[in-house]
Amino acid sequence: MTPTITRRPDIKKLVRPNVLKLKAYEAKEIPCKVKLDANESPYGYGYLKGIKTNRYPDPQANRLKSVFAKFAGVSPSNILTGNGSDELIYYLITTFGGPVLYPTPTFSMYGIIAKALGEKTIEVPLDKEFDLDLKKILSVIKKEKPKLVFLSSPNNPTGNCFSAERILKIIKASKGLVVVDEAYQPFSSERGMAPLLMDYENLLIMRTLSKVGLAALRVGFLIGDEKILNEVNKVRLPFNLNSVSQALAEKALKDRKKARAIIRAIVRERDRLYRGLSKIKGVRPYPSEANFILFKVKDADKAYSALLNKGVLIRNMKGVIDSCLRVTVGAPKENEMFLKALGEII
Amino acid sequence: MTPTITRRPDIKKLVRPNVLKLKAYEAKEIPCKVKLDANESPYGYGYLKGIKTNRYPDPQANRLKSVFAKFAGVSPSNILTGNGSDELIYYLITTFGGPVLYPTPTFSMYGIIAKALGEKTIEVPLDKEFDLDLKKILSVIKKEKPKLVFLSSPNNPTGNCFSAERILKIIKASKGLVVVDEAYQPFSSERGMAPLLMDYENLLIMRTLSKVGLAALRVGFLIGDEKILNEVNKVRLPFNLNSVSQALAEKALKDRKKARAIIRAIVRERDRLYRGLSKIKGVRPYPSEANFILFKVKDADKAYSALLNKGVLIRNMKGVIDSCLRVTVGAPKENEMFLKALGEII
Repeated sequence: MTPTITRRPDIKKLVRPNVLKLKAYEAKEIPCKVKLDANESPYGYGYLKGIKTNRYPDPQANRLKSVFAKFAGVSPSNILTGNGSDELIYYLITTFGGPVLYPTPTFSMYGIIAKALGEKTIEVPLDKEFDLDLKKILSVIKKEKPKLVFLSSPNNPTGNCFSAERILKIIKASKGLVVVDEAYQPFSSERGMAPLLMDYENLLIMRTLSKVGLAALRVGFLIGDEKILNEVNKVRLPFNLNSVSQALAEKALKDRKKARAIIRAIVRERDRLYRGLSKIKGVRPYPSEANFILFKVKDADKAYSALLNKGVLIRNMKGVIDSCLRVTVGAPKENEMFLKALGEII
Repeated sequence: MTPTITRRPDIKKLVRPNVLKLKAYEAKEIPCKVKLDANESPYGYGYLKGIKTNRYPDPQANRLKSVFAKFAGVSPSNILTGNGSDELIYYLITTFGGPVLYPTPTFSMYGIIAKALGEKTIEVPLDKEFDLDLKKILSVIKKEKPKLVFLSSPNNPTGNCFSAERILKIIKASKGLVVVDEAYQPFSSERGMAPLLMDYENLLIMRTLSKVGLAALRVGFLIGDEKILNEVNKVRLPFNLNSVSQALAEKALKDRKKARAIIRAIVRERDRLYRGLSKIKGVRPYPSEANFILFKVKDADKAYSALLNKGVLIRNMKGVIDSCLRVTVGAPKENEMFLKALGEII
């Protein structure tokens, strides 16, 4: 057995030269009685109790970071907040550039953002079990030296977690950064990659509040080594997270009981939905560790349209995974309406 | 006299090739009874009346756009919304690339963002009246062909509007885009550049709610030709503006009376503050069309620290404009405290 080698990325080689020489924008909070430094209006709109609408947000989101740090079991300096995970992906690719490697099918934004920023993308198809094609990925890593590898686990739209062992091998083999997007981790029975953070500095983890009842707020978190986050922070817009989202995300993260209840209810419904789908002839659902279920039918286009005719909107995955549809786990009543409608049209 | 030539930019030459071939991310709203397509939680947090925290924001911000369109006298298709103007600058530079030209001193984010994105910047110092150095800018435009020219008018931190005639000449001479950032226009007695939009397709105008009482929300607007905005829209993150900011910005824009009252109060105080500054020996304020005043003292560092000691925080412009400080117009009481403190320490 080979000993575990802690991977320390060479930041100077990884960061784009124009970013490396930048300094982060400093917007320090200086205590004072009369604040006339930031071209704010002295008058706000009394729309939200406790929020001064006329003041700029805390540029560092310090209170939110400290609450999330406790939740995640890391230090606030290991966290960067984003206007959704989308923005964090944007910043990661701006900071490190390409090539950007990700398996397919997966969350579409890795590729969309890399292309918007003019960076090379490398797509490696998943294997037949929707797991990572380790051999292919390792050979591409060796040959193309991607700066960033994005792994959504649990993966959207397939619903499964990737093999933890394979993810670890990719982290070990990669001289670039491996970003594990754990947007759906709250619904998973597996442990996630966070325990590896202390041993592998080239591992970053993304989390979001969008799947657990707060999509409206756009709050994403990037967790990782402080030296790496400091580089990403240089390309971050100083006021990227508005005050309302900061305040409400903080409040929600403190309300652990409610969050747990939401997650438990969704997991329970997911398993019921899976059993329901399994019972419909001509429907093949795939096991899910997320808050949605991918399933196969004979004619995805037809099923999609017929469901929409009955008022049920789900995602048609045709063109991404042949003959597949993806349904989000809804409230019990919604799931029943969906199952009933699907049973009638298949 | 030469006839006015409507400037139609050649989009294919302006847009970066990787962006030109992209398609905008489509997140259409499809009417349905049961919405199970977006991996949202069926359960939200009842924090805000009328806002479903569990649902993603409207990706197009259609209601907000239509309210702002009425306000600005343009069509909603001539508007792009941003998570603050900062984000719109990011998107503009991502879409068109550099060189990026701007006068100095000016709002720092044009340069910061261009550098973060690895694009060349060209800085042309303002003349002695803080106006645009037309001769130099025109010669640079001819030689370096900047893709983007950013002009903040009224300008931060000098407070003056640039000569409208000079701006027009720059628009006419430029084969790239000229972005006039009118963040401070609500406080100006001048007319602004919006009337030129219909004749010059290479003119874009930025507005923000950050200076008029809503900095906390991060809402910026880009106004311009639809074909150009369509290109910028390709690099926009689909859910860049959260639901709360959309809703509250819409509400505030409808409350014209309140907005007018805030602006009037600030302008009145600015003029009073200017007179107060003029009366202090050793202080030379510059006229302002914005919600702040730049002023010269003998020793800016010393004045800055002495004011802070008395609890008054303003902006030290040392290193940007020699021996200058910038004070934001506050509420009457705040301005009095500032004037009193300054009088005591000068």
